Amino acid sequence: MTDRQSTPAIPAFVLVRPQMGENIGAAARAMWNFGLDHMRIVAPRDGWPNPSAVALASGAGRLLDEALLCADLPEALADCTFTFATTARSRDLTKPVYSPEAAMQLAAQKIAAGERIAVLFGPERAGLENADVAQANALISVPVNPQFASLNLAQCVLLTGYEWMRASSDVAPRSDEMAGTDWAQHREVEALARHYEDRLDEAGFFFPEHKVTSMKTNLRNMWSRLPLTRADAQMLHGMMRQMVRWKERD
Amino acid sequence: MTDRQSTPAIPAFVLVRPQMGENIGAAARAMWNFGLDHMRIVAPRDGWPNPSAVALASGAGRLLDEALLCADLPEALADCTFTFATTARSRDLTKPVYSPEAAMQLAAQKIAAGERIAVLFGPERAGLENADVAQANALISVPVNPQFASLNLAQCVLLTGYEWMRASSDVAPRSDEMAGTDWAQHREVEALARHYEDRLDEAGFFFPEHKVTSMKTNLRNMWSRLPLTRADAQMLHGMMRQMVRWKERD
Repeated sequence: MTDRQSTPAIPAFVLVRPQMGENIGAAARAMWNFGLDHMRIVAPRDGWPNPSAVALASGAGRLLDEALLCADLPEALADCTFTFATTARSRDLTKPVYSPEAAMQLAAQKIAAGERIAVLFGPERAGLENADVAQANALISVPVNPQFASLNLAQCVLLTGYEWMRASSDVAPRSDEMAGTDWAQHREVEALARHYEDRLDEAGFFFPEHKVTSMKTNLRNMWSRLPLTRADAQMLHGMMRQMVRWKERD
Repeated sequence: MTDRQSTPAIPAFVLVRPQMGENIGAAARAMWNFGLDHMRIVAPRDGWPNPSAVALASGAGRLLDEALLCADLPEALADCTFTFATTARSRDLTKPVYSPEAAMQLAAQKIAAGERIAVLFGPERAGLENADVAQANALISVPVNPQFASLNLAQCVLLTGYEWMRASSDVAPRSDEMAGTDWAQHREVEALARHYEDRLDEAGFFFPEHKVTSMKTNLRNMWSRLPLTRADAQMLHGMMRQMVRWKERD
């Protein structure tokens, strides 16, 4: 219980031997976009703290202040129960490979069950070494254009963080098709259709005689097919009223 | 058929009034990571071609060479049948809002049905203006940390492209009874909107003065939101023409 309570509700993102401070800062921003603020940094090339990381992290600087600086990967993963390694090229190592989506869904399940999850991100140029990957339980492979796979560190962090937010929140709507919209009721669409038909009749729109019925049917059909809101209906009434006023003014 | 055959199998990503060339280049790289190479650029701040865009695009420079440069948004959307606008803050405009996942699934279905899809990305700082959004059929909202929403242009392009790759790799072309419908193209909706706005202006519909802009935006927004067929557009033109003839008859 206490162990469970002290378990963070989010995965730790571990930057392994990052090189440019700018990329560390950009990674922090990418993380915080999706509510992730648990960063661990293993043996950063240019030491720590890193001014250019701070400069780039603007708004997410807290993540750098609170980041856990580690001498090596085993230290960074010490308290973790399950580790994912993000990797571009496929490895000869036998490990389960997950898409970012499947990986973060699994991470959410494990965290809900009280586990501590880490996700490894390699150095900008080389990526993770096999020795690093060997310490992970599973791989995350981002589906990219085989002719052009050029995700940088912050982008890889961004996509993984994005999938974390999707996996961990029901907030992200699949698509709220204008939920809460004040749609026009049938009787209102009916009144709108009648208003237009009557005025257009007076105006001599329905012509020639043998086409009148089909023209009226087409017009009526359009009104029912269009997803009109109450506001749309009112505006359309107002437009027609104004055209009539305009005519009658002189 | 020929029209269907000439329809590209991917959405066009439209950068609206982009500022820094670096960001245009980064957007091109982000797109090509997911196999997207159809870019349109509207009124780039620093002109075109842009050397710093080329410098940043390394590996994806072809997208810039082949990008369609447009003077304004209507020109960029002229041949499109459905447009998504990516937006950070929510708008008062009544439009369906999709997650990137749901939006790209819908895009894949529409493209499979022969439609031409565009996705709008706003300028770095300000984002899309309401006048831009009013020309879109739906919105894409990326679920981000409400305390920290700081996606840059290339990152927004990256996430949308990533969802495109996920959606297009498993397109279930579910039968759609409106498939094969002769939808009005953007240029036709644009002409319809202009026709109504001009006549209603003459007729004194847009009043009082301080409401003119929002009234026009709401009207323009309605035209974009309604699924208009070519036949609908022609009928609506005819209705307005007849109202004017009626007025002028006496």
